[in-house]
Amino acid sequence: MSHMFDTVTVVGVGLLGGSLGLGLKKRGEAKTIRGVGRREESLNKALAGGSIDEAFTEIDAAVDGADLVVLCTPAALVPTFLDSIRPLCRSSCVITDVASTKASICRHAADTWDAPRRFVGSHPMAGSEKFGPEHGDANLYEGAITFIEDADGLDPEAVERVTQLWQLLGSETVRITPEVHDTLAARTSHVPHIVAAALAQLTDTGDDLRAFVGQGFRDTTRIAEGRPEIWRDICLTNSEAIGGSLAEIIDKLQQATEAINTGDGDRLDRFFQDGLSARRKILDNRPKEDTPNTKTGNDSQ
Amino acid sequence: MSHMFDTVTVVGVGLLGGSLGLGLKKRGEAKTIRGVGRREESLNKALAGGSIDEAFTEIDAAVDGADLVVLCTPAALVPTFLDSIRPLCRSSCVITDVASTKASICRHAADTWDAPRRFVGSHPMAGSEKFGPEHGDANLYEGAITFIEDADGLDPEAVERVTQLWQLLGSETVRITPEVHDTLAARTSHVPHIVAAALAQLTDTGDDLRAFVGQGFRDTTRIAEGRPEIWRDICLTNSEAIGGSLAEIIDKLQQATEAINTGDGDRLDRFFQDGLSARRKILDNRPKEDTPNTKTGNDSQ
Repeated sequence: MSHMFDTVTVVGVGLLGGSLGLGLKKRGEAKTIRGVGRREESLNKALAGGSIDEAFTEIDAAVDGADLVVLCTPAALVPTFLDSIRPLCRSSCVITDVASTKASICRHAADTWDAPRRFVGSHPMAGSEKFGPEHGDANLYEGAITFIEDADGLDPEAVERVTQLWQLLGSETVRITPEVHDTLAARTSHVPHIVAAALAQLTDTGDDLRAFVGQGFRDTTRIAEGRPEIWRDICLTNSEAIGGSLAEIIDKLQQATEAINTGDGDRLDRFFQDGLSARRKILDNRPKEDTPNTKTGNDSQ
Repeated sequence: MSHMFDTVTVVGVGLLGGSLGLGLKKRGEAKTIRGVGRREESLNKALAGGSIDEAFTEIDAAVDGADLVVLCTPAALVPTFLDSIRPLCRSSCVITDVASTKASICRHAADTWDAPRRFVGSHPMAGSEKFGPEHGDANLYEGAITFIEDADGLDPEAVERVTQLWQLLGSETVRITPEVHDTLAARTSHVPHIVAAALAQLTDTGDDLRAFVGQGFRDTTRIAEGRPEIWRDICLTNSEAIGGSLAEIIDKLQQATEAINTGDGDRLDRFFQDGLSARRKILDNRPKEDTPNTKTGNDSQ
């Protein structure tokens, strides 16, 4: 039986790493999946759930002889792991990651690896507020967009292999420079997460607000359930773009405050109309089908 | 056949008014539903969909002889309609509304009606980003919490009738003073709507951001699809509480910005942990069952 990959090493066996392992095995595209983790408990869950075949707590042995290494750790750890594995991987090995920020990681890789570089950054836009390998899903990447680094000095064959990896898992791949990726992701993903956390915090008063929680609150704050350490790292590794977009949204909220304080109904009308139009524009023009909205429940107003 | 209400007049035949009519008729609790609207088109849709039996463009004839009047107009119009109908309703008539802000409406009613007052404010926490009577749903209020005004000078029988109305439509009723209602709703509903509109606006750049839109963006901005005039009115009629909560969230976002600018990982960790804890606290302790989350799709990170 021919596999696309012989030995795949997944560093970090959480939801993303576990789902990657399950997805490759389900499709018969990897002979052996090795998982690397610090905690025995996660490794045992990953072994039990079938997302990895072999468990390692040390990176050295885990990447030895691998033909694909995927770093599924929080973003801030990726550069350190790249430094560790660079001298250990065989020359034919392809390396990628799944971090939600790309510029600082890819810059580090470009600064430390000789061209043609066989580390090619990836960002699959997939995940969930659940975490841990026990929530792994062989189809997690199905239908998701995966961004793949576009830069000078990359090994074309490595780019091809990384592209194949995500496509065989069902992703639509999009090449993009790390800098543009981070600037745009700040607007549509990173800042919304920060805002969701702030909205959730607003309810932490001495009052009993439980009766006031409707579907609107649930939806606007759902992503506040993400893992704090993941979002901390995203903020730290994309600080400039996030800072810029945060300043923009603070300005918009200050404008809304001013319109409210002055009782300016026309300005408030435009504020809500602008939000509505912007959302419809970005969703209606989307190239792929809209995710079916299964929500028919009540909406808090 | 005995009905709880003989003639019910619904002023404003949008989603909320239309659903009210359908809900009463489905349960056999109203003999006749009269609908009042400015636009013939909406009235015809409501007649065709069965949410009203008779259509009126003038309020005077519509409330004549009614035993229940429900104002389903945007919040800012409620006081004007109250002034119009006060001299027209017969003494046994009970009046309520469905506006999402209560203090300014109930204050106006208390200032202009003699005690015992037969207008009792309501706020059913139900709705949808869809609008218009064609989306009316006889079960829209099923399982929703409906707040009912708690104040001095109300006619106890009117309070009882209004409570029965919402309970027979499937709502759980909660008595609350209009001021407390508005303060708490600002935090869990009004400010999230303003923030959702601002988040959606962030995507209105010259860039093509379509590939960057994941489930996280969809969820955090879904309520930005609400009707601008409804949300304008909510802002105008609850300006003080909304202004206070907006100032709080702006402060939180400025704190996050400072933590990002200074690279303070511990502070960012706490920021996201605080959001996560606050959300879990308010949802886990909820008295009623959580709305089933049917979303299993991918989540943008």
